[in-house]
Amino acid sequence: MSVLAFEHPWLSGLFGDVEIAHFLSAEFQLAAMLRVEKAYTKALEKAGKISTPLAEGCLSALETLDIDLHDLKNATARDGVVVPGMLKQIRKQIEEELHSALHTGMTSQDVIDTALVLGLKEISAILEQRLGDLIDQLQHIESQLQDTAIMGRTRMQAAKEIAATDRVANWRAPLVRHRSRLEDIGNNLLIVQLGGPVGNRHEIGENADGVARSMAQYLELGEAGKAWHSQRDTLVEFANLLSLISGSIGKMAGDITLMAQQGVDEVKLASGGGSSAMAHKQNPVTAEILTSLARFNAVQMAGMHQTLLHEQERSGAAWSLEWLILPQICLATGAGLRNASVLLDDVASIGGHQVQSSGKPT
Amino acid sequence: MSVLAFEHPWLSGLFGDVEIAHFLSAEFQLAAMLRVEKAYTKALEKAGKISTPLAEGCLSALETLDIDLHDLKNATARDGVVVPGMLKQIRKQIEEELHSALHTGMTSQDVIDTALVLGLKEISAILEQRLGDLIDQLQHIESQLQDTAIMGRTRMQAAKEIAATDRVANWRAPLVRHRSRLEDIGNNLLIVQLGGPVGNRHEIGENADGVARSMAQYLELGEAGKAWHSQRDTLVEFANLLSLISGSIGKMAGDITLMAQQGVDEVKLASGGGSSAMAHKQNPVTAEILTSLARFNAVQMAGMHQTLLHEQERSGAAWSLEWLILPQICLATGAGLRNASVLLDDVASIGGHQVQSSGKPT
Amino acid sequence: MSVLAFEHPWLSGLFGDVEIAHFLSAEFQLAAMLRVEKAYTKALEKAGKISTPLAEGCLSALETLDIDLHDLKNATARDGVVVPGMLKQIRKQIEEELHSALHTGMTSQDVIDTALVLGLKEISAILEQRLGDLIDQLQHIESQLQDTAIMGRTRMQAAKEIAATDRVANWRAPLVRHRSRLEDIGNNLLIVQLGGPVGNRHEIGENADGVARSMAQYLELGEAGKAWHSQRDTLVEFANLLSLISGSIGKMAGDITLMAQQGVDEVKLASGGGSSAMAHKQNPVTAEILTSLARFNAVQMAGMHQTLLHEQERSGAAWSLEWLILPQICLATGAGLRNASVLLDDVASIGGHQVQSSGKPT
Amino acid sequence: MSVLAFEHPWLSGLFGDVEIAHFLSAEFQLAAMLRVEKAYTKALEKAGKISTPLAEGCLSALETLDIDLHDLKNATARDGVVVPGMLKQIRKQIEEELHSALHTGMTSQDVIDTALVLGLKEISAILEQRLGDLIDQLQHIESQLQDTAIMGRTRMQAAKEIAATDRVANWRAPLVRHRSRLEDIGNNLLIVQLGGPVGNRHEIGENADGVARSMAQYLELGEAGKAWHSQRDTLVEFANLLSLISGSIGKMAGDITLMAQQGVDEVKLASGGGSSAMAHKQNPVTAEILTSLARFNAVQMAGMHQTLLHEQERSGAAWSLEWLILPQICLATGAGLRNASVLLDDVASIGGHQVQSSGKPT
Repeated sequence: MSVLAFEHPWLSGLFGDVEIAHFLSAEFQLAAMLRVEKAYTKALEKAGKISTPLAEGCLSALETLDIDLHDLKNATARDGVVVPGMLKQIRKQIEEELHSALHTGMTSQDVIDTALVLGLKEISAILEQRLGDLIDQLQHIESQLQDTAIMGRTRMQAAKEIAATDRVANWRAPLVRHRSRLEDIGNNLLIVQLGGPVGNRHEIGENADGVARSMAQYLELGEAGKAWHSQRDTLVEFANLLSLISGSIGKMAGDITLMAQQGVDEVKLASGGGSSAMAHKQNPVTAEILTSLARFNAVQMAGMHQTLLHEQERSGAAWSLEWLILPQICLATGAGLRNASVLLDDVASIGGHQVQSSGKPT
Repeated sequence: MSVLAFEHPWLSGLFGDVEIAHFLSAEFQLAAMLRVEKAYTKALEKAGKISTPLAEGCLSALETLDIDLHDLKNATARDGVVVPGMLKQIRKQIEEELHSALHTGMTSQDVIDTALVLGLKEISAILEQRLGDLIDQLQHIESQLQDTAIMGRTRMQAAKEIAATDRVANWRAPLVRHRSRLEDIGNNLLIVQLGGPVGNRHEIGENADGVARSMAQYLELGEAGKAWHSQRDTLVEFANLLSLISGSIGKMAGDITLMAQQGVDEVKLASGGGSSAMAHKQNPVTAEILTSLARFNAVQMAGMHQTLLHEQERSGAAWSLEWLILPQICLATGAGLRNASVLLDDVASIGGHQVQSSGKPT
Repeated sequence: MSVLAFEHPWLSGLFGDVEIAHFLSAEFQLAAMLRVEKAYTKALEKAGKISTPLAEGCLSALETLDIDLHDLKNATARDGVVVPGMLKQIRKQIEEELHSALHTGMTSQDVIDTALVLGLKEISAILEQRLGDLIDQLQHIESQLQDTAIMGRTRMQAAKEIAATDRVANWRAPLVRHRSRLEDIGNNLLIVQLGGPVGNRHEIGENADGVARSMAQYLELGEAGKAWHSQRDTLVEFANLLSLISGSIGKMAGDITLMAQQGVDEVKLASGGGSSAMAHKQNPVTAEILTSLARFNAVQMAGMHQTLLHEQERSGAAWSLEWLILPQICLATGAGLRNASVLLDDVASIGGHQVQSSGKPT
Repeated sequence: MSVLAFEHPWLSGLFGDVEIAHFLSAEFQLAAMLRVEKAYTKALEKAGKISTPLAEGCLSALETLDIDLHDLKNATARDGVVVPGMLKQIRKQIEEELHSALHTGMTSQDVIDTALVLGLKEISAILEQRLGDLIDQLQHIESQLQDTAIMGRTRMQAAKEIAATDRVANWRAPLVRHRSRLEDIGNNLLIVQLGGPVGNRHEIGENADGVARSMAQYLELGEAGKAWHSQRDTLVEFANLLSLISGSIGKMAGDITLMAQQGVDEVKLASGGGSSAMAHKQNPVTAEILTSLARFNAVQMAGMHQTLLHEQERSGAAWSLEWLILPQICLATGAGLRNASVLLDDVASIGGHQVQSSGKPT
């Protein structure tokens, strides 16, 4: 049972995102790392560096591994990364003549970073889908509001009446930009990592770039001609975008919270959280959680940007700071998009005008 | 299997802290919340607000509960807090005439915050113990160094020779201050939370302050005469202190990393992390993790301080931001202290002078 | 005399950037705000909303204003923004029949945000130029290094030899991406702000979008069909990019600092900071400042992302948080690029191989 | 004219604090650094390390210096710190035989850190005074509210009525704790810095601790028996406290903003900011600025805690990060306390009950 809110037995009801979590899980990571190792073995074979029988023998042997997680933990505590321990277990389980077909010329970071990218590819697709759904929900709401007026508020004070659609359009427009950013970022982000021990592909030997291209092809990722071991800008840019998403959602949620206040009464929520002491209350719980997730992600950006200061060819300190932070940003953003949809489905009226749920299953 | 580094199947080898995690776990929280409910029931009885048989009946009934975590998760998603769902389950399991002896006059936040404080009390004790051990380890090392000289370095450049003990003393001195701060902070931190729905104890009725004092006594906590529902400064101060601890440890670890560089060679580590590609390397993995944990905690401070902006009598947004961040700071600090001890035990020599491990089991 | 490092009488020797500061200065802002007001007056005229003589009379009168800064300060303290006070001063100085040609239908935020964008356009151009220069400097260095080898270092430990150009290429590649990002971002960033009091252009009346397009044309900015009063994502994205730039520079500077250590000796700096106590030392001062600026910008990102939570049609709190932070990020990034160039010019040798300064004047 | 909000020609109307700024100014710093040099000279004399006539000659010569700031800037750009350049100017202006009485055995950091502490001592006193005044203002308001009721609000929803004094007491209580923390922190904070080039006082020679004690006595500071060159925890703790102060003020300001909303109408402000487009509005500008300042300080904490990772005997990178951040935290906290008082004086009624200004001049 996790002690952290994203995976906590009951707090995950608010903060959890099972779908995103899957692509960050040890189970997925382990499978992805093996996919990377296999793609590399195939790429070595394609480049003529190992024979086809050797490659096929190795690939076949890798199908039936039994990895001991407890041993991986001890090995990680010792080595700082999981890969040496994983390889040690694998090498014990496959015949010695196959060893040279596995990992030769690569380094742990190649495996871990590429496996991460494989997960981020899936996560990006989920986020893009959810952004699209949220945009649709907002458009559906706008289409029902007709000429409903609400009070425009600036500096927390009533200013002039606006169309309710004016405000909703301000919630939607940034999401459209974020979806477009998410598409654009893929070209830099979804790139195979391959550099070998010191990042220059020298240990791979001749035609290392060809090996990288094949490996990328097998994994359906891009290839940049170089390793990016110590160049972490695209990961930070991705995290930035996720925090932009949760921030824009947080703005919407904050508005809804303010609109749901007694005395303002411009949003009515169909349901709302109960209270242990005041049964009558309808708390805008989901909206509050969205505010919290947005501020959480904002905070983490100060950490992601610190990871750019990545010493020399590989910094254990800067790299592991990513491990502590980036998965959380993914989860918080996923939970934000998930909850945003729940929240919009819960909006029963805006400016006194009833709005229908999107019909989207929640 | 957690996706987050602190509890991840293999990354927890680096970042985990089982001992601290226990006092943040759902299991502990649930037990602590029940302890709080019971202490409140006893306090109601002591104040003559409920009869002794009623109190005893209630307390006895609370001994044999069966709480369904999955239901708690759904209830939390709806209510924003776990307590209403927990109480609903409890009320179904105890006789109706006992209901009035349970929670009457309290609010969810009283239960959750007080349960948190019960956990923080245990965590503080662990941290204090570990700080003391670390101080002892450093003194033990200093005592062996005699007049060993190392190069004093300022602005990353060799400056003048110093005694190796000069540097070690700079690692130790802040830890001594932190231990003293940890003792001091208890007076403000380890305080029962009791305010009722809107924080003013009115629902408790006459002699509410007496109820609070009794409750505090049963829980071995302090009492401040008022609820602190919307006053979160002491929690932030506690987080600050934890980040000071991990920061001071990070400074030590950074120094050791620099001292272990080839060409500098002022620290020799007995062991060190392996590499998947370079078997000869002795990586200062533990030191790097300490740097990472220190920077992680530093980042989280920007979030803890945001939680001070806690609207009105209770802010779901600000409060839940604490839930996302504070447990992580506790874990990171715990893991920092644990790893700091491991690191010092791993130091084989400083300035060419052999030092003995502290003899502390690692 | 400023108390802040960026403009401090002596600390600005390290942290200052006069060229960037100009486009953030009150002098530039005031002129830019007047440019915005004039462009709006011209746009009103072009749309047939005011007569040509009225427009020309107003534009002519705006040429000879005398703005009292002290009065602006008092007005800003009262109003929270400078524009009402500025307009009050202007209206006193121009004939009353011209008043209707000025600002009618606009709001303070239209003026301030558009003036900001006019400054950011200039700043972007400077940063792009400097990025290009820095890329050239690095290429110039690479071209001289031939097959110089240095020790590749991973996890702060000697790993395997690499070509010195391997490391320098890792410094350069992110800068090339940043330059491309800077070009891309302009389409979203360099957009006129025009919404009127509650952001929906209603006070401008018919053909408000036409007015916005003309205004944009006069100011050589883009137009998005809507105001972005409460949509701050593009400003945050811009800040993100600036912090990516300073982070990548910080990585380079950190490497140089490590390479300049005695015992490592892989970089020799031509000059270096003096010490009040140790005349012989050559401190890598510029490199340290670059590390500091990178970490500073990283921290500020936690604030920029908070500004996304911009309540309703206009949040004074979120907007003014931008004012506190964004100019500093611009200055820190500018100072980073400026100092990066100074640092590279100061590199006398890498891996024992002499490199020539770029010939760029410093 | 500063480009930064704290000192900007008009934005300083919102964010400025002239009184605090004085103790952070170059003018004050220069004078304080000279005070430190003189105190050291006197301490050398008292310890018998230099003759009385030499000390007196030196002290007398230091009375009539003419320091060129432009030259200091160039020197700082070169050396990374101002002291070597300052000393060079001084040495040119005093006779050569006096040189040995000046700075011998000290290092730049001794001078700069001690001068900083001299400023922080004054700033602490101002903040303590203002905290006391603010506590008094709040008590004065409470004393007038009698049994005025307002709606208690939890999770942004009407809950149950509370006494208006319940809410005001929640604003006041943390300030009382902060005042007490400010008193406590002095013992660790207001400590002379004296370590010499590598921090161990060796260059001062025999009885260095006695020299430090005398120096502290002359400067009315404490002495800790050791230099704290690389131990920055107390500075971070001080920054933490300042951010706690601005956070608690931000909570109050946020509540007032919410109470001043139309429809809620639980606070009436006597004045309020004007709008360029809507003359009727009464914007709670001061309250919004307090929110902004609180979030600003919260963000900066992520930077202050990073400075704990201070390498070896002196880190130019970590130290200069303090210079970028700590003065801003002081200014933001000062401006927060100043504006909080303005805001409370502007509160005309709470819960429909008129309250009198404190009579404090604003």
